[in-house]
Amino acid sequence: MPATLIDGKHYSAEVKARVAVGVEALKAQHGITPALAVVLVGEDPASKVYVASKGRACAEVGIRSIEHRLPETTSEDKLLALVRQLNDDPEVSGILVQFPVPAQISQQAVINTIDPLKDVDGLHPLNAGRLASGLDAMVPCTPYGAYLMLKGVRDDLSGLKALVIGRSNLVGKPVAQLLLKENCTVTMAHSRTKDLRAEARAADILVAAIGRPHFVQADWVKPGALVIDVGINRIPAPEKGEGKTRLVGDVDFTPASEIAGAITPVPGGVGLMTVACLMRNTLIAAHRQAGLADPAV
Amino acid sequence: MPATLIDGKHYSAEVKARVAVGVEALKAQHGITPALAVVLVGEDPASKVYVASKGRACAEVGIRSIEHRLPETTSEDKLLALVRQLNDDPEVSGILVQFPVPAQISQQAVINTIDPLKDVDGLHPLNAGRLASGLDAMVPCTPYGAYLMLKGVRDDLSGLKALVIGRSNLVGKPVAQLLLKENCTVTMAHSRTKDLRAEARAADILVAAIGRPHFVQADWVKPGALVIDVGINRIPAPEKGEGKTRLVGDVDFTPASEIAGAITPVPGGVGLMTVACLMRNTLIAAHRQAGLADPAV
Ligand SMILES: NC(=O)c1ccc[n+]([C@@H]2O[C@H](COP(=O)([O-])OP(=O)(O)OC[C@H]3O[C@@H](n4cnc5c(N)ncnc54)[C@H](OP(=O)(O)O)[C@@H]3O)[C@@H](O)[C@H]2O)c1
Ligand SMILES: NC(=O)c1ccc[n+]([C@@H]2O[C@H](COP(=O)([O-])OP(=O)(O)OC[C@H]3O[C@@H](n4cnc5c(N)ncnc54)[C@H](OP(=O)(O)O)[C@@H]3O)[C@@H](O)[C@H]2O)c1
Repeated sequence: MPATLIDGKHYSAEVKARVAVGVEALKAQHGITPALAVVLVGEDPASKVYVASKGRACAEVGIRSIEHRLPETTSEDKLLALVRQLNDDPEVSGILVQFPVPAQISQQAVINTIDPLKDVDGLHPLNAGRLASGLDAMVPCTPYGAYLMLKGVRDDLSGLKALVIGRSNLVGKPVAQLLLKENCTVTMAHSRTKDLRAEARAADILVAAIGRPHFVQADWVKPGALVIDVGINRIPAPEKGEGKTRLVGDVDFTPASEIAGAITPVPGGVGLMTVACLMRNTLIAAHRQAGLADPAV
Repeated sequence: MPATLIDGKHYSAEVKARVAVGVEALKAQHGITPALAVVLVGEDPASKVYVASKGRACAEVGIRSIEHRLPETTSEDKLLALVRQLNDDPEVSGILVQFPVPAQISQQAVINTIDPLKDVDGLHPLNAGRLASGLDAMVPCTPYGAYLMLKGVRDDLSGLKALVIGRSNLVGKPVAQLLLKENCTVTMAHSRTKDLRAEARAADILVAAIGRPHFVQADWVKPGALVIDVGINRIPAPEKGEGKTRLVGDVDFTPASEIAGAITPVPGGVGLMTVACLMRNTLIAAHRQAGLADPAV
């Protein structure tokens, strides 16, 4: 594969190392230990895995981890009451409610209730608007991770043509805003886009955040392009044994890596950045709540 | 000119007529008269003209107009105190501080202080984020006017390629969000974009919000494209007499109208929609503040 592999392990370790230094400094200089409150409602096995990995990352970087586990039957009122309590708790720097929440709870109501200053997921509309308006914001973790990887490969993105496939509030839209801020010419594509292949072939930067295994074919990739694969898809892997599965991205990695200039693998790519950037956001949130300047992380 | 002229007079009259009906209904059914408070700081002649035209539009549609004129030397504290007073005044539905404000006042501080529910300019980051997140928002007036004109020409914009040149919070970015919501494939271009001509030639919808007279040449326009010219530029017009000026758009209108499918003139195009959409936002704000569903305007 001639493409440079954009290694999530390397970049996420860098972010976490910078965060650990920042946490240490905040403790030493201001006596503040940043704390992340994670709220898990119900028993979804994938969510449990995510929550556990967040707890481990906190331990790694010196952030205090607070876990709240609520039963599957929790009412919206009850969850919102907990969020408000965490908003008011001066010991809590960041609040993350693990999505999806059970059907009786409105995800948007949860998002709207979290104090924007503690909104380490960056999903509150005030944070989306601050990002779009060019102001300091809490930026969603996965998009920021994708952005850091691109900047790691090529510091000056100005004037590059970027195609973002996917327009979710969680991934596609914030990625587009971050690239626009870097002076890319940004195209936002989605399921209604016509001739996506032609759009992709014109792109110096291709970000796939679709959720369809191997959807982006090798011949969609412009030679030398920077390819960021956000997708995480589980597909059957009979070669590993009956009933086994494996994770793949939205990009057909092996052939695409013959054409791209640099590419993220799945697993081992953007996915690892999400938790690292969550640690970063928690540290930044702690600084802002204390009236301190943002740390250099 | 084979292009259909997208007539701002026609579209703005339609919007104002719908608003007038909505105002009448709100008064009759709920005893509420929507009111727009316009704040003008200083003596800028162009701003005075804008403020006067807003007052006239209010009178046309039955909205109460409240004007506050403050001296050029007004401090930021003083202006923000007035904004807070208007926020708290239940008689006031919408607040518009005419920009630019004098240099001693931070425009962003003014924007951040206006109650998002009364933010009829749609510039508060919460409104920008609500728009970006697909939630009900106060949408900036000029972008919404541009959007209404496009929808008037062609109701189904889904799958069309749109190029928005300009990425200001006031115009370019919200136009892009509105077109994305209409399922266009949206490209955001700006001063760092390379080969803008090629980008433009590929666009089914071309929105110019640049601020450079006749910047977009006829041979940038894809045959049959819908062209929305947001630019308002004053240039010398010696043909009208010494020292005279005239208004032109960002698009070289006469030749472009030989190629476009539909095009807005300047003057007489998007400019007229801004005030009409301000009336619309004021009416919507009055409904939301009263806990009523949005009117069909
Ligand atoms: N930690 C991580 O690395 C991380 C975090 C979040 C998400 N992810 C992964 O990233 C992927 C996207 O996540 P998401 O939350 O953004 O998903 P989402 O909310 O489902 O959004 C998917 C987007 O892809 C678009 N799309 C779907 N089918 C398409 C097609 N055939 N052609 C073009 N566009 C198409 C959709 O278009 P419409 O808007 O038109 O429907 C939508 O905008 C998923 O695989 C998810 O697992 C990974
Ligand atoms: N009522 C109305 O109809 C109304 C309302 C508002 C504005 N306007 C008019 O609309 C125009 C734009 O207003 P605005 O407030 O959005 O202006 P702005 O804040 O000055 O933004 C101008 C945008 O144009 C881009 N640009 C400048 N030179 C360019 C070039 N050579 N090539 C490509 N892009 C270029 C800039 O790019 P960078 O970001 O890279 O600098 C910027 O994003 C002005 O003429 C204004 O008078 C009309």
